Amino acid sequence: MNSMVKYHRRLDATFHALADPTRRAILAALRRGERPVSVLAAPHKMSLPAVMKHLQVLEQAGLLRQKKKGRVRECHLSAKPLRQAEAWLSRYRIFWGQQLDSLERYLAKQRSAGTGAWTKRNRGRTQRSG
Amino acid sequence: MNSMVKYHRRLDATFHALADPTRRAILAALRRGERPVSVLAAPHKMSLPAVMKHLQVLEQAGLLRQKKKGRVRECHLSAKPLRQAEAWLSRYRIFWGQQLDSLERYLAKQRSAGTGAWTKRNRGRTQRSG
Repeated sequence: MNSMVKYHRRLDATFHALADPTRRAILAALRRGERPVSVLAAPHKMSLPAVMKHLQVLEQAGLLRQKKKGRVRECHLSAKPLRQAEAWLSRYRIFWGQQLDSLERYLAKQRSAGTGAWTKRNRGRTQRSG
Repeated sequence: MNSMVKYHRRLDATFHALADPTRRAILAALRRGERPVSVLAAPHKMSLPAVMKHLQVLEQAGLLRQKKKGRVRECHLSAKPLRQAEAWLSRYRIFWGQQLDSLERYLAKQRSAGTGAWTKRNRGRTQRSG
């Protein structure tokens, strides 16, 4: 499998894992440190096997690791795939920027109607966004 | 529906929409501006109805809007849900930071074995990360 295909498979798995509120809640719980399966399952109104399936999806996406400590299975967060997902999303940041720039231009016009000084001082900022 | 439930439904829809390479490719194409459906479909080895289904998933997630211009359906990107998804992911940024901090601590130890001065100068930085 070439690296581009691998990259896309990883993104597929990450975004799929994140497309569920229970799985996102499990990841949120793991932000506070490692947790046994029973503790992760407790807040959710579902059977233990149902929770285990969610853990498996997270594990397959590389977002969760399980370690046996005596009789307890401790789960911990593995954040690297999230970093990759965020890098993908960050390519679209420019579009939020453009939306903010439109607002900024609108506000600049509103202000310049009142006082010319403001526009002059901020011309560099508003022009840069065009 | 309360706002927390709505928030999670939106995140579900966004991450689900992103969990497919064809849909991500369509979003990437829309970064360069609005495109007719036929142009978006062209690079993909699938039937037009199959592509239309992907467009529908993106539209339902609020990531794409369709506008009729004469006989042509123009699609354009709607990036707001991506911003929300990125905000969710950004809560995990601290863990990438921690991984870097571990590396920094390791490097600090390596260096202090050679020269005590470096550790002293950087003690503030390495202790803060603990």
